[in-house]
Amino acid sequence: MNPTQWFTEQAPGDEVAFSLAIKQKLHEEQSPFQHLEIYETKSFGNLMVIDGCTMVSTRDNFFYHEMMSHPVLFTHPNPKRVLIIGGGDCGTLKEVLKHPGIEHALQIDIDERVTRLAEIYFPELCSSNNDPRAELQFIDGIKWIKQAAPQSIDIIIVDSTDPVGPAEGLFGVDFYRDCYACLSENGLLIQQSESALLHMNLIAAMRDAMRSAGFAELQTLFFPQCIYPSGWWSATIASKTELTGFREHDSANKPFATVYYNSDIHKGALAQPEFFKQAFPK
Amino acid sequence: MNPTQWFTEQAPGDEVAFSLAIKQKLHEEQSPFQHLEIYETKSFGNLMVIDGCTMVSTRDNFFYHEMMSHPVLFTHPNPKRVLIIGGGDCGTLKEVLKHPGIEHALQIDIDERVTRLAEIYFPELCSSNNDPRAELQFIDGIKWIKQAAPQSIDIIIVDSTDPVGPAEGLFGVDFYRDCYACLSENGLLIQQSESALLHMNLIAAMRDAMRSAGFAELQTLFFPQCIYPSGWWSATIASKTELTGFREHDSANKPFATVYYNSDIHKGALAQPEFFKQAFPK
Repeated sequence: MNPTQWFTEQAPGDEVAFSLAIKQKLHEEQSPFQHLEIYETKSFGNLMVIDGCTMVSTRDNFFYHEMMSHPVLFTHPNPKRVLIIGGGDCGTLKEVLKHPGIEHALQIDIDERVTRLAEIYFPELCSSNNDPRAELQFIDGIKWIKQAAPQSIDIIIVDSTDPVGPAEGLFGVDFYRDCYACLSENGLLIQQSESALLHMNLIAAMRDAMRSAGFAELQTLFFPQCIYPSGWWSATIASKTELTGFREHDSANKPFATVYYNSDIHKGALAQPEFFKQAFPK
Repeated sequence: MNPTQWFTEQAPGDEVAFSLAIKQKLHEEQSPFQHLEIYETKSFGNLMVIDGCTMVSTRDNFFYHEMMSHPVLFTHPNPKRVLIIGGGDCGTLKEVLKHPGIEHALQIDIDERVTRLAEIYFPELCSSNNDPRAELQFIDGIKWIKQAAPQSIDIIIVDSTDPVGPAEGLFGVDFYRDCYACLSENGLLIQQSESALLHMNLIAAMRDAMRSAGFAELQTLFFPQCIYPSGWWSATIASKTELTGFREHDSANKPFATVYYNSDIHKGALAQPEFFKQAFPK
């Protein structure tokens, strides 16, 4: 038998690494924006890697995609128009479209190749791409949002890679200001916000930028994500108006299936670890 | 500069691996029971490794030790006598002794060398070892508990290694039956119960064994633990009587500091992921 081959991600700066045993490399290319790799792993299904960082695996992507969509959708009183920036693997789009009230979900990822590869290697994530409410555009989201109609979007989901490379601008105050302008009255933005064990400096800078952009309230959710550094991830909701909880009854009676998310998990994800509360008091 | 050296744990059977960059190996020995290694890592402080598995790091042990102690202690109405089986690094003992109501905390780890190394390389975890309420014994916990006085202990914390090697018996029905017998009327047992992403078979077997031993109700808690496989760990409380929540007021007004745990985190940790609820309905 051949010795086991591994794909390893070294989290930059943190001197931790995560590895998955692989059966074979299925694909590799340099897109105009990023280096893309697809592996078949031994026990996590397929794995997409962008610029050396694990992005999505068949086995555990449900944590991330469910937690980037359902909490924010059940926090907004009546979301109809959703914008996803990034999210090229289409897993977040699929979760968003499970909500019957959604009228239009626009996914803007700068790199069309991510979606084309997801269609081949993660078809289960792309099963709603032909939903008539879905629109996929492959352009620069940062530019697009500058010209978006004011107050035209209920929820913006920033489903980005790490804040280096193409996604760097997605963590900055100029971008958040443009998001603020095109969000409707009760508008919400959610941004994947890295690991509270490893990236507190980044979270602090992001929160400052969100506040400077005018957002009234921030709410950070915590959830497991095995293939991301530390295995413990977060997402931060920024709200134009004060938050008063979430639609718990609707969440508890959601008309669709999930693997991780439910209304108890939603409440639980909002619990702030002691060190986080002390770092970011209200 | 030398190339980076890493300590890597391959989770058995799951084909995932976790690595920490190391500065140097500080110690290595074969105790009568296990292979023990201590490393100085680059960004996680010191690391103890037992039989090739990461056990405790300076940087992130607070998750595990706080979640193995405070939830179960705040669930019992009035805990006075605590038994820790395993737990040789003394981090759980330290958290237990933060509760002023505790009169006696007995730690029984089969391997004295674990504690002697913790005293040297994790002195902050051993700072309560000389508390007059603490008693440390280095004997076989499985044997000890067979002869323990009936109903003499309020809480048993099974702070064990994985259920292979010396800890295998700690996940079995005979051991749980002996625990049940020596627990007082409202007695609780908590057992570290591995990862719900990777080890559902193990959790199922453990739950069956706990029920067969007579425990009336089980409650699984979820929490991050970066250095353990998948980064997402669990602990399971087994109760002799029906559980009616926890002492939330006492938890919210606890007279001691924590890094992760607080009453919101306690409630949040009890939220059952959808797939877990479906696998283990009440």
